[in-house]
Amino acid sequence: MRDVYYEQLERLADRLLDMSRMVGEAMDRATMAMSGADLELAGLVVAGNARVEQTRVDAEDHAYALLAARSPAATDPRVAVAAIQAATSLERMGRLAVHVAEAVQRRYPQPVVPSPLMPRFTEMGRIAVWLATMAGQVIVRRDATLARALVSVDDEMDDLHRTLFTVIDYREWTYGAATAVDVTLLSRFYERFADHAVSLAWHSTFLVPRQSPTKDPLPLTTPLQTANTPC
Amino acid sequence: MRDVYYEQLERLADRLLDMSRMVGEAMDRATMAMSGADLELAGLVVAGNARVEQTRVDAEDHAYALLAARSPAATDPRVAVAAIQAATSLERMGRLAVHVAEAVQRRYPQPVVPSPLMPRFTEMGRIAVWLATMAGQVIVRRDATLARALVSVDDEMDDLHRTLFTVIDYREWTYGAATAVDVTLLSRFYERFADHAVSLAWHSTFLVPRQSPTKDPLPLTTPLQTANTPC
Repeated sequence: MRDVYYEQLERLADRLLDMSRMVGEAMDRATMAMSGADLELAGLVVAGNARVEQTRVDAEDHAYALLAARSPAATDPRVAVAAIQAATSLERMGRLAVHVAEAVQRRYPQPVVPSPLMPRFTEMGRIAVWLATMAGQVIVRRDATLARALVSVDDEMDDLHRTLFTVIDYREWTYGAATAVDVTLLSRFYERFADHAVSLAWHSTFLVPRQSPTKDPLPLTTPLQTANTPC
Repeated sequence: MRDVYYEQLERLADRLLDMSRMVGEAMDRATMAMSGADLELAGLVVAGNARVEQTRVDAEDHAYALLAARSPAATDPRVAVAAIQAATSLERMGRLAVHVAEAVQRRYPQPVVPSPLMPRFTEMGRIAVWLATMAGQVIVRRDATLARALVSVDDEMDDLHRTLFTVIDYREWTYGAATAVDVTLLSRFYERFADHAVSLAWHSTFLVPRQSPTKDPLPLTTPLQTANTPC
């Protein structure tokens, strides 16, 4: 019975890992689509989100199977609940990548972001993809120290988001208010993608049952109490 | 044992109802603070959020107690998981009201929204508070039909959010890009508050155990498949 439980848990973790790869790739492609006003690439991001959502359903099914299990290892429901919360963050990361891609589609053939600001968004995209990749590593390793490391990189994203406001506010802004709106929302999408990656990493540290035969269980206290809850 | 389970479930629902009242009141006050550039009221919203977060912790504790229960009524873990998800939505609604209040604080003594746009935000605030109140009613009544009714009102909020872009885009916008940024983010905060209220209402329809002695259980299919998942 315990073997079945661990097998289910690993299958669930695999689904979450798949999702982390998909949403990281989606945000990478969305950023490239933004950079090149690439309608085809933007379309791939939008279309690809159905797979993310289907994988979320699969992950949740596995999580409910864990909750229904009555093995000795299944005494702590937090493992399954954390997995459901991780899947929720991942689904939202996928949607945020779609929001970026949809902005590209909406403004095409115009670029959605003025070219002088594009390097900032390329950097935000780089950080977003890094965070998704590292959150994937936390899913694999359930490593609270690694999860904590994501918080400081998320701070870099927050700084970029804040600096963008300053740029719009004080430099000569010649692109009009509508572009300011687009840029503001895009910046917020990246910032929230990063917040969700941190939240995902945190929840992933709980994917260890109390009586794991192979790994030391992590304490059930919050390892990332300073992390922002996305909202 | 079953009595204890139902008692726990009702106590959990009471905590969620408390939260729905708190976040509705917070958004109401935040909107009033915005309208009157009222620093004191904005401060009350920010300070009051600690109670929302504490109540969320209480609600989650009750939900985990339900998951740990082994009564015949506790065979469906979706009840407790839905409660945790409802509490997450409520916590985020509280944070969004805080975001609005913080914008008021940041721009004080200047108003954060130009006066010609304030009626729009008053309307968004009215819809937001209505949705929070109605989501509270869904928590009390676990009524899927009522939950569905929230979706059409959420559509009104979405329309207001979209129309705001048009106003910023095509009317003579004389307030500068920084104000456009503020207005855009504020509009998004209200729109997301509404999305979370819909999500909350949906999750609240699951707060009925399969073997309830007093109520017909709802089907486990999604009653609101067309609702947006907040992200």
